[in-house]
Amino acid sequence: MRGATNAILQLTEKQKQAGVVTHSSGNFGQAVSLAAKNLGVKAYIVMPFDAPQVKKDAVRGYGGIITESQSSLTAREAEAKKIREEKGATFLHPSNNMDVILGNATAAMELLEEYPDLDFVFTPVGGGGLIAGTSLATHYFGNNCKTIGGEPFEVDDAYRSLKSGKIEVNRSANTIADGLKTNLGDINFPIIKQLVSEIIRVEEKEIVSAMRYIWERVKIIVEPSSAVSFAALLSEKERFKGKKIGIILSGGNVDFSHLPF
Amino acid sequence: MRGATNAILQLTEKQKQAGVVTHSSGNFGQAVSLAAKNLGVKAYIVMPFDAPQVKKDAVRGYGGIITESQSSLTAREAEAKKIREEKGATFLHPSNNMDVILGNATAAMELLEEYPDLDFVFTPVGGGGLIAGTSLATHYFGNNCKTIGGEPFEVDDAYRSLKSGKIEVNRSANTIADGLKTNLGDINFPIIKQLVSEIIRVEEKEIVSAMRYIWERVKIIVEPSSAVSFAALLSEKERFKGKKIGIILSGGNVDFSHLPF
Repeated sequence: MRGATNAILQLTEKQKQAGVVTHSSGNFGQAVSLAAKNLGVKAYIVMPFDAPQVKKDAVRGYGGIITESQSSLTAREAEAKKIREEKGATFLHPSNNMDVILGNATAAMELLEEYPDLDFVFTPVGGGGLIAGTSLATHYFGNNCKTIGGEPFEVDDAYRSLKSGKIEVNRSANTIADGLKTNLGDINFPIIKQLVSEIIRVEEKEIVSAMRYIWERVKIIVEPSSAVSFAALLSEKERFKGKKIGIILSGGNVDFSHLPF
Repeated sequence: MRGATNAILQLTEKQKQAGVVTHSSGNFGQAVSLAAKNLGVKAYIVMPFDAPQVKKDAVRGYGGIITESQSSLTAREAEAKKIREEKGATFLHPSNNMDVILGNATAAMELLEEYPDLDFVFTPVGGGGLIAGTSLATHYFGNNCKTIGGEPFEVDDAYRSLKSGKIEVNRSANTIADGLKTNLGDINFPIIKQLVSEIIRVEEKEIVSAMRYIWERVKIIVEPSSAVSFAALLSEKERFKGKKIGIILSGGNVDFSHLPF
């Protein structure tokens, strides 16, 4: 929501009149819909025809104009390109876009305004947009505050990318954290490489357990992808004992008919 | 939490040293545990031996000292009385206690500080402590703001009490909103009678649907009892069109192994 809002705010008046387009069917599609509506801009959202009804309802409820496509990334990209050409709409990438990254950064920035002496900020790693923004915020606004990423073992492309120094991809995608299956991009990876201290990997059952804990005690609906940051902290809690920790939770797309507990 | 905190803050130093006791096994038991812990006071919580494990874990996690009893209200009251006598602990009633009511009032008071021109504040009605506090706040801090209660048809004792002018009781308790089964008390009813404008009753399926809507869109875990206030608004939404509405949500005790959807 922060990333989408900032990206739309940076458009020229002419661009705003033509609208924006994205092919995210998850949180970013909903965020672009609502951010665009708040700013009086049209949002075209490409979604796979077989996307869950709850996601379609949410996008539509937030004012997004849905175009259905086949499920593959190629098909979705092609459909988004068509809308870009036909409507003149600006394409918004969910993670590999500097304005989205800077919008995301405001979460950690506000956290640090309230708690200036945090030692660490934990955040999930998917496409890299959130952690890139977070690491910029901890670097420029923190007091020696480090950014740590949480990532499922099943899709540990960012962990491997930090080791090898180049963007690695996922070969499987067998994780409950479906928002974290995407790979890093050429805009966010250089930032991550320079500013993220470490990525901690977690097991699937640790993700479910962290998510349930947040639901039960913090009373906030987070999706599995969002709970990965907290799961990463819990998995090494002895090590972080006595430290001041901030945790970014982002994403609450949950289908209540298919809960993992 | 607000009610429990305020009630403990009003105790003398001597009373604080002896601790507090309650026999609520739900939100109030957890609230007293945490509020007492925050204020360095011991909290004795009487719970039925067959209370859900998740509730026992929560009370213990928040620092409450659990005493198990038989399930009946009589058995729980007897156990609480014993602790009062043995430990000198102060008994805190979850709804029929003026300090609890005034603590509860701070929710609507803060809401009105932020939105001074609310026309209505909706709140659930169970034992009457929350709605009594809410109606005091709207009366003294609102600008002609009215308090409306939401109550399940299945346990409409407060609705009937407002009609008859005396405290009516529930004959059945067949509702998913298990926090609202209790009856009004002699301390809160006079306030409710004077300051609550109306009570709107809702069907069980309206409660589930309002709860799901809050989970999906507001991303906050509320229990069925808590969603009744929003369900009441939705059930007459045409009537309240264009009005400025505040809604009090209170209570997120949900057993995730037994969801109604």
